[in-house]
Formats: sequence, structure tokens, C-alpha cells
Amino acid sequence: MAKTPSRSRTSQADRRERTRRSLLDAGRRLIADKGVAGLRISEITTEADVALGSFYNYFDTKEDLVDAVVGDTLANVATALSTKETEDQDSAEVVATAIQRFVAIAYEDPDFAQLLVHLNHSEEVMLGSVSPPATAAVVDGLESGRFKLEPEAVDIVVTTILGGALSLMRAIVMGRVGPGAELVYAEHALRMLGLAPARARQVVQRIA
Amino acid sequence: MAKTPSRSRTSQADRRERTRRSLLDAGRRLIADKGVAGLRISEITTEADVALGSFYNYFDTKEDLVDAVVGDTLANVATALSTKETEDQDSAEVVATAIQRFVAIAYEDPDFAQLLVHLNHSEEVMLGSVSPPATAAVVDGLESGRFKLEPEAVDIVVTTILGGALSLMRAIVMGRVGPGAELVYAEHALRMLGLAPARARQVVQRIA
Repeated sequence: MAKTPSRSRTSQADRRERTRRSLLDAGRRLIADKGVAGLRISEITTEADVALGSFYNYFDTKEDLVDAVVGDTLANVATALSTKETEDQDSAEVVATAIQRFVAIAYEDPDFAQLLVHLNHSEEVMLGSVSPPATAAVVDGLESGRFKLEPEAVDIVVTTILGGALSLMRAIVMGRVGPGAELVYAEHALRMLGLAPARARQVVQRIA
Repeated sequence: MAKTPSRSRTSQADRRERTRRSLLDAGRRLIADKGVAGLRISEITTEADVALGSFYNYFDTKEDLVDAVVGDTLANVATALSTKETEDQDSAEVVATAIQRFVAIAYEDPDFAQLLVHLNHSEEVMLGSVSPPATAAVVDGLESGRFKLEPEAVDIVVTTILGGALSLMRAIVMGRVGPGAELVYAEHALRMLGLAPARARQVVQRIA
């Protein structure tokens, strides 16, 4: 008896999280299929098999769901990219690979990149979801001595590397920058993190 | 006789440029006084002493004028900042000072900074007006041997340094970053341009 209320609260929270996830998954599929412009909330709830009115228990507007879809996708990508495969993997390689693959989305998935760069709050969405794993990867390289950075510079460097990546992705999507920019940027971001130019070049040559 | 049409064309172009400038100046004063939100086109034309209907010979919407005001201001600031005072001035000092003063706008002129970071196309406006003088300053440092950069990396590095500056200004305006970020960023941008960490530190210590 004593456990019933807590179990019921848990399963209610679980159910909420499942419904929210269904709406996000449906939104992601529909956005991938047909873009954001003509997307209707009723389509999302039909695809998610959720009552139309329930949508508003989870999101205030369609734009909020789109922000959440993009933020979610970015957080997954960033976490996957900035996680070391083995404990002794070089932090510089981890960060350079993460930057390279992240920026390459602009070449490889132009629909998602368009969505990202045209989002109203693209920068807040991106910083909110990508900063935590990016900061962790930078701190890791700092602790291992691979990066040379004052501790108080970490937030500023992470903010500007991510902001720079977003600008570059926008330039790629708009055709202002040709192919190969992802590796060039990864190399120069490593310089920012304290690697000498020759070292930064070696790292990107290894991951290219 | 032969010269009359051309002179008349010139003075017509001059007149157009003067009227456009009056509208921009009036827009700038009104924006500084009371912000963009409640700004009306009729106020701008009254302040500029221009017929209301003429506005549309120069700008399609109020937003277009605001973009032009911000772009103009940025271009002036960037050109002033990235011009050497003397021929033998160190390029690294010129660029670091330009970045430092530019980012410092977010602390010193929060109204303008708010305008800049909340603009719909803030990045395009900023890149369009600031990229040319910024690129010239970087090329200058490249030719003098002060910066170490492949020529094909220049556009990418300028785009990401400016995008990073805009992100940082947004973070400052939103209170996510404390004081002093302008010098920290200038130092790390110099690293990106190929200065060794110790050299970059020396340059910002000289300009601080």
C-alpha cells in the first residue's frame, strides 16, 4: 500500500515522457518528410496517435516543438561526437572530429542544416543542447594537458567555437563557402584551444 | 551642352544618396532615442523632413531601414577599427584591438547590442558590413608574416571569428558571460590566426 502513490507518480511521469517523445518523434519524421513550413499540429498528433488537445500539455506552439526536435537532435549528435571511444583517446582528435562532423551536417543533411540555421532562436537552441558535451570535452583536454587554456576562458572559447560553427554552417548552406570547410575549421579551432599550428595540422591530417 | 545630361544624372544620384542618408540618420537618432519596437515610418520621414511616400523609393519596409542603419554603423566601426594608424603598426595589435572594441559594444552600448543580436538577419547584416574590412586586416597580417594561415582558410577564419564575436556579444547581452570577455576572445582569436599562445597573450597585454 505504502508504495502505490509513488509508483503511480512514476508511471504518470513515464507516461508523460513517452507521450512527449512520441510527439517529438512524429515531429522529426514529418519535418524530415516535408519541412517545417506547412507542418500542422494536427498532423503531428495524428502521426503520434495522440489527442489533438494533448499537444498543448507538452508544447505551447508548433515552434516550441520544432525547437525541441532540433535541440534534441543536436544534443544526441554532440554527445555521441564528443564522447571518447577509449579512455586514452587524444582529446584533440575527439574535439576536432566532433567539430568536423558537426559542421559537415551542412553538406550532408542540407534539410536539417536549413532548419538549424533558419530557426528563430537557432543559437540559443544550439548552445543549450551542444554546450554541455562540448564543454566537457574541452575540460577533459585541459585536464590531460593537451589544451592550453585558462579555466576562466573555457566558457568564452566554447561559446565562440560553437557560434563560429553555426556561422560557418550558415555560409555553407547559402553556398558562400565551398567544400572542405569542416576540416579547415576543426584545425583552427584546435589552435584556439592552444595547439601550435603544426600540431593542429597533424591532428586534422590524422582524422581526415 | 554635351555635359548637361551627365551632370544632371550625377546631381540626381547625389540627391538620392542625400535623401537616403537623411532617412538613415533620422532612423539612427530615433532608434537610439526610443528603440525599434514602436518606431513608425511616418516618424522617420518627419524627422528626416522627407515626404512619407518617398520612404518606399529607398526601403521596402521599416525592417530594411533598421538593417541598413545597423549595417552602416557596423561598417563604420569595423573600418575605423581595422585601419592601421601607421604603416608599421603590428597587424596582430590592430586585429586584437578591433575584436576587443567590437565585442565591448555589448558592455558599453547595450541598446545597440540588443538591436544587433535581436535583428532577424543579424548575422548576414554583420557579415556583409564587417567582413570586408576584417578580411583586409587579416590579409595584411598574412602578407607581413605576422599571421600563419593558408590563403584558402582566410574566408573561413574571418567568418567564424565574426560569428563567434556575435555569439559572445549575445551571451554578454543576456548576462551569460561576465566582464572582460572581449580581451579573452581577442587573445584566442589571435591563436586562430596563427600566433603561439604566449605571443597572443603578450599582444593583448599590450593593448589592455
